[in-house]
Amino acid sequence: SSLVERLPSSALTLFEAKKKKNLSFEAIAKHIGRDEVACAALFYGQSKASGEDVKKLSELLDIDHATLEAQLTGWPDRGRTMEMPPKEPLIYRLYEIVQNYGYAYKAVLNEKFGDGIMSAISFSTHVEKETDEKGDWVKITLRGKWLPFTRF
Amino acid sequence: SSLVERLPSSALTLFEAKKKKNLSFEAIAKHIGRDEVACAALFYGQSKASGEDVKKLSELLDIDHATLEAQLTGWPDRGRTMEMPPKEPLIYRLYEIVQNYGYAYKAVLNEKFGDGIMSAISFSTHVEKETDEKGDWVKITLRGKWLPFTRF
Amino acid sequence: SSLVERLPSSALTLFEAKKKKNLSFEAIAKHIGRDEVACAALFYGQSKASGEDVKKLSELLDIDHATLEAQLTGWPDRGRTMEMPPKEPLIYRLYEIVQNYGYAYKAVLNEKFGDGIMSAISFSTHVEKETDEKGDWVKITLRGKWLPFTRF
Amino acid sequence: SSLVERLPSSALTLFEAKKKKNLSFEAIAKHIGRDEVACAALFYGQSKASGEDVKKLSELLDIDHATLEAQLTGWPDRGRTMEMPPKEPLIYRLYEIVQNYGYAYKAVLNEKFGDGIMSAISFSTHVEKETDEKGDWVKITLRGKWLPFTRF
Amino acid sequence: SSLVERLPSSALTLFEAKKKKNLSFEAIAKHIGRDEVACAALFYGQSKASGEDVKKLSELLDIDHATLEAQLTGWPDRGRTMEMPPKEPLIYRLYEIVQNYGYAYKAVLNEKFGDGIMSAISFSTHVEKETDEKGDWVKITLRGKWLPFTRF
Amino acid sequence: SSLVERLPSSALTLFEAKKKKNLSFEAIAKHIGRDEVACAALFYGQSKASGEDVKKLSELLDIDHATLEAQLTGWPDRGRTMEMPPKEPLIYRLYEIVQNYGYAYKAVLNEKFGDGIMSAISFSTHVEKETDEKGDWVKITLRGKWLPFTRF
Amino acid sequence: SSLVERLPSSALTLFEAKKKKNLSFEAIAKHIGRDEVACAALFYGQSKASGEDVKKLSELLDIDHATLEAQLTGWPDRGRTMEMPPKEPLIYRLYEIVQNYGYAYKAVLNEKFGDGIMSAISFSTHVEKETDEKGDWVKITLRGKWLPFTRF
Amino acid sequence: SSLVERLPSSALTLFEAKKKKNLSFEAIAKHIGRDEVACAALFYGQSKASGEDVKKLSELLDIDHATLEAQLTGWPDRGRTMEMPPKEPLIYRLYEIVQNYGYAYKAVLNEKFGDGIMSAISFSTHVEKETDEKGDWVKITLRGKWLPFTRF
Amino acid sequence: SSLVERLPSSALTLFEAKKKKNLSFEAIAKHIGRDEVACAALFYGQSKASGEDVKKLSELLDIDHATLEAQLTGWPDRGRTMEMPPKEPLIYRLYEIVQNYGYAYKAVLNEKFGDGIMSAISFSTHVEKETDEKGDWVKITLRGKWLPFTRF
Amino acid sequence: SSLVERLPSSALTLFEAKKKKNLSFEAIAKHIGRDEVACAALFYGQSKASGEDVKKLSELLDIDHATLEAQLTGWPDRGRTMEMPPKEPLIYRLYEIVQNYGYAYKAVLNEKFGDGIMSAISFSTHVEKETDEKGDWVKITLRGKWLPFTRF
Repeated sequence: SSLVERLPSSALTLFEAKKKKNLSFEAIAKHIGRDEVACAALFYGQSKASGEDVKKLSELLDIDHATLEAQLTGWPDRGRTMEMPPKEPLIYRLYEIVQNYGYAYKAVLNEKFGDGIMSAISFSTHVEKETDEKGDWVKITLRGKWLPFTRF
Repeated sequence: SSLVERLPSSALTLFEAKKKKNLSFEAIAKHIGRDEVACAALFYGQSKASGEDVKKLSELLDIDHATLEAQLTGWPDRGRTMEMPPKEPLIYRLYEIVQNYGYAYKAVLNEKFGDGIMSAISFSTHVEKETDEKGDWVKITLRGKWLPFTRF
Repeated sequence: SSLVERLPSSALTLFEAKKKKNLSFEAIAKHIGRDEVACAALFYGQSKASGEDVKKLSELLDIDHATLEAQLTGWPDRGRTMEMPPKEPLIYRLYEIVQNYGYAYKAVLNEKFGDGIMSAISFSTHVEKETDEKGDWVKITLRGKWLPFTRF
Repeated sequence: SSLVERLPSSALTLFEAKKKKNLSFEAIAKHIGRDEVACAALFYGQSKASGEDVKKLSELLDIDHATLEAQLTGWPDRGRTMEMPPKEPLIYRLYEIVQNYGYAYKAVLNEKFGDGIMSAISFSTHVEKETDEKGDWVKITLRGKWLPFTRF
Repeated sequence: SSLVERLPSSALTLFEAKKKKNLSFEAIAKHIGRDEVACAALFYGQSKASGEDVKKLSELLDIDHATLEAQLTGWPDRGRTMEMPPKEPLIYRLYEIVQNYGYAYKAVLNEKFGDGIMSAISFSTHVEKETDEKGDWVKITLRGKWLPFTRF
Repeated sequence: SSLVERLPSSALTLFEAKKKKNLSFEAIAKHIGRDEVACAALFYGQSKASGEDVKKLSELLDIDHATLEAQLTGWPDRGRTMEMPPKEPLIYRLYEIVQNYGYAYKAVLNEKFGDGIMSAISFSTHVEKETDEKGDWVKITLRGKWLPFTRF
Repeated sequence: SSLVERLPSSALTLFEAKKKKNLSFEAIAKHIGRDEVACAALFYGQSKASGEDVKKLSELLDIDHATLEAQLTGWPDRGRTMEMPPKEPLIYRLYEIVQNYGYAYKAVLNEKFGDGIMSAISFSTHVEKETDEKGDWVKITLRGKWLPFTRF
Repeated sequence: SSLVERLPSSALTLFEAKKKKNLSFEAIAKHIGRDEVACAALFYGQSKASGEDVKKLSELLDIDHATLEAQLTGWPDRGRTMEMPPKEPLIYRLYEIVQNYGYAYKAVLNEKFGDGIMSAISFSTHVEKETDEKGDWVKITLRGKWLPFTRF
Repeated sequence: SSLVERLPSSALTLFEAKKKKNLSFEAIAKHIGRDEVACAALFYGQSKASGEDVKKLSELLDIDHATLEAQLTGWPDRGRTMEMPPKEPLIYRLYEIVQNYGYAYKAVLNEKFGDGIMSAISFSTHVEKETDEKGDWVKITLRGKWLPFTRF
Repeated sequence: SSLVERLPSSALTLFEAKKKKNLSFEAIAKHIGRDEVACAALFYGQSKASGEDVKKLSELLDIDHATLEAQLTGWPDRGRTMEMPPKEPLIYRLYEIVQNYGYAYKAVLNEKFGDGIMSAISFSTHVEKETDEKGDWVKITLRGKWLPFTRF
């Protein structure tokens, strides 16, 4: 099924308003004081909006506040946007990194931190653009809390 | 089937020598002048060893040079270590990040760079440990060349 | 689900106009200065239309410019047209070529180019018809940039 | 399971001899008068060896003729080398081309040839290396007989 | 999803007209000069209708010619009717024959014809009913062109 | 996993003896009075051997009778040879016929016979070679008892 | 997708009428002279209704005869109600019985009957309720014709 | 992988001894006082053997008691014998009954018993052979405790 | 497909009324005398509502009694809410616990109780919140009847 | 593949020693000061052993300390024991609880704790046996740290 069918109603509202206002995620993110990846995730229903977020979004994007609030009050039902493995080439490359380097990350993290995991919840991520003589480079940072397995 | 069955014979040779010498990937990586994730990937058969790498590894790890060279001359058959979706909790968290934030990354990258992908080949990655009053944090950096879709 | 459900709204607009005008992809491609495979991919939402493409397509196909522009401004969400493995016999044959000759291509490419991949992004493709006494032959050319794995 | 487990015994014999002789597929292919992709496919058990092929291979690679003949007399059991979708990045790129451009190829081929398929059996393929100021390029040619659906 | 969702619009038009006219596939097939399996396949969108077929079908089934022509002009997108493995008991039995006798057919065909396949494109099929003292028997004939693998 | 791992031990015994004796399935089938497809199926462990079959096979193929009898006394565990969908091109073509024409067969059979199925158990099949000016043709006949659904 | 989407239109008609009339399958089955499992299967589109069934159902359930007849004239497209493995706990238990005892049934049936299968077509089933001091017990009887594999 | 690989070591011991003694499951079951399906399930490692069972089996089948006891002391790891969906025709027919009649059973059982399931644990099953003028019939009885869902 | 598509109509009615009344599951559960997990399960169509439940829910949530009764009279079709493996991070963690500790639970339960299972039907569950200096903790209790396998 | 193939070598060592010593997980767990589920998980390679654990286990179970230490020094590769969905009835019941109550747990936890998850890492679990007049009951407690999603 198509992506739109898997998104909550808020996504349609937000993407249409964004298009009409012709605003980038960078601009919107700055306005609500969040990272642009988190901001895009919020549009896709993959991140929770605070009351303050709703207010600022409705102002910036000229969306009726009550409508947006009603659409965004529920708890995100994460994971709905994607069918795995991803078919989209850009997203597949990220998936491939996990596939190719998964055990290498684990080996290095176990040596550095012990028996545990990097949290994907107590977690943030950021995207940067770098340019050198060879062209443009994407730099993605993943930062998560280290959680050791509880001994019981 | 178990992980060992999916690894090339070089993996057994290298992991056993590493265990006997009791060396970390950090130490080995420094010795061969590569990142420790790349070094671990090389152990798992997910990365190519140069002739120089083979020589330095055989010295540091006391492995017969001819044996190691023979085992490492082939071209890596990448992707063999993992069954997807990953069952290992540490690796699953990375997979979950792709699942949850995949379209958010795409939206932000398209806005910043245009129509294209971040290469997973012309690519490097690095792991750091950060500590603050809340505990330890993992910081993973992914850096890849931006490749625009060719217009044809 | 059916193919139509997986296509963006632009596809319906474009295919209907093409049918009414009774134009081939060859003719349309010539008009917009692109390869006919790229042109068909654009119709299926698998390729990005430039502003110039939109203008020329709306003229040639008598589609309201604003409507087409609105439908084509987003970033392609590639991979939506296909369920894998393909059930369509024509497409399955291409899939079968990858299945049967995948490792042979890899072996030959590694020997010729080293450790890397052929890009599917910095990439173009072309279809030709050849006829001899045995009948008609399809000749498909795939041409992609060679990307060596970064040493890190 | 690993690739080796899925290959016929002839593969082990041939790859070991090739390694000892340090010959490329290009050289071997020239010796037996076949394309290097077909030659590599033969090594992986994906292509049939003629009696002449067996003779020339045993000579060039110093393999006992009776042994090689016994291992190569059966009919190829094609498709065994690959698990789909491919995890190997190089092969995945070819798979992705089918995924992204499958319907575009079909649309163009139907317009050019009518209702039918490009054969993957009455078929040949060839790989070339091209170099320009931007770097190296892979050019893969697929050439197959057009088969119209029989009207019945 | 249900079968109807996977069929092209022509299927609805044709099946409804057939029901109203109360005609069997045998009768319709005779009228258009095709085999009844091919005729049923045409109803399901799995076979191409010629201009002559469209004309005769619209006459026999009292369907507006322009409507039917518009619905049947596209190229069949084959394979859409079925989810594999088939759940329908009648169709599953055919699938089971392939599952149980697949390698036996291959072994016999390789011995009789060499290295190749039976075409499913340059292909026809026919169904007959036979009755003896034990009851009714279905006899299905599959007839396809033998295609030898090209040596290249 | 490879085909050999999925076959009963009798398969190895029979195929080796057949190779040594250099006999075709046609010849063996004639000797034991069965169809050559059934005979090949017996070799792959997909068909039951009678006591008479065992005796004749051991004579013709010079296999120790007691050994063969011990290996063939069990009940066939059918379906083990194939992974579905089939990757082997020859077998895939048969699978594709079911995929493309499955509902057409059902529609025609329901009209001809009523509500039921063609048995794959009370069933026989036969392969013939036909040659005309266009080349060789494979003709496969499937013949099964019609089983009406019991009304209860 | 939900169960309703996979059911034919007759199911909606029948279930709504049954609810309005507040009749059990036991009562309806008695009225049409069929087993209650067959009757429920008919409601779900998994069993064929005779002309007599349609007449009696339309009377008992106050459904317009022509409407019901039109909805029930087609041939059942069996297997549409279920996604396998079943998620419904009641149905999963039946699936689990096949999973756990499948080979035990086969072993016992082969010993008792020879090489063949129990038909699921020439087949009936019945459900009974038994009560003892430990509580209620479900007793399901499956009764199918034994079909020996044809020797050919 | 083959069935044997998925069975515990006790299976090999028991099946070989049974073959040597040439005893049916019926005879063995009578000797240990269990149903023959349960007895076959025990051979496949799908049912628990009591101390008494082990003793009687080792006597009847001439197996060293300590060996058999050691192999049968563990807890059954049920479900290992089968890959679902079953490929074996006999077992597939049972699976098909669940697929076709699953919701009919549920509808009837809910009406007769309320909200709950038939236990597959507090459960027994039995196989009978019936013969009439039409041939042989298999009658399988499934009997399980009705478990109502707890209200909480 | 989205979650809403897989839910019965009662879910929409109940969730909208709950939102309008701004009541927590804790409050609703107390009102109808059930556990809050059972109450939420009832909202998702995963648990049966008694006549009393319907009455109290319609009162508390101001829903027309006849409407709610009509929507809740059917038998729950359990398992519809989830696609497995779960993509939602919160639910995935529960799935991961089964994946990681499944055999450990089995080993411990077999030792403590013998050969059997913990019922998921004769079963209740409860959620508690605990807070200590490290933060908040979730405590989930699962309580099910032990069912020994019947010896037969 | 069987369970044993997926376990690390330590599992074989530990289970054999446990069997010889005839000790329960309860007794072993008490000896090493851990919960019996954690102890069983350690045997299956799903939990990390401390140096102290290794020492106490080698003493209690009479295993050579150096051997056990060598086998247990690696980092657990969790998730290897299970194929999902579980076929084992006992483990399936736990899986079914997640399938049936997953969204109910999420709804209740979101209301009680906000936007986050229950950790499966900072986590412990415990099994108890309760007996009343109705029989035995299993009580499983899951206790995990609540992790709120980071706002970024």
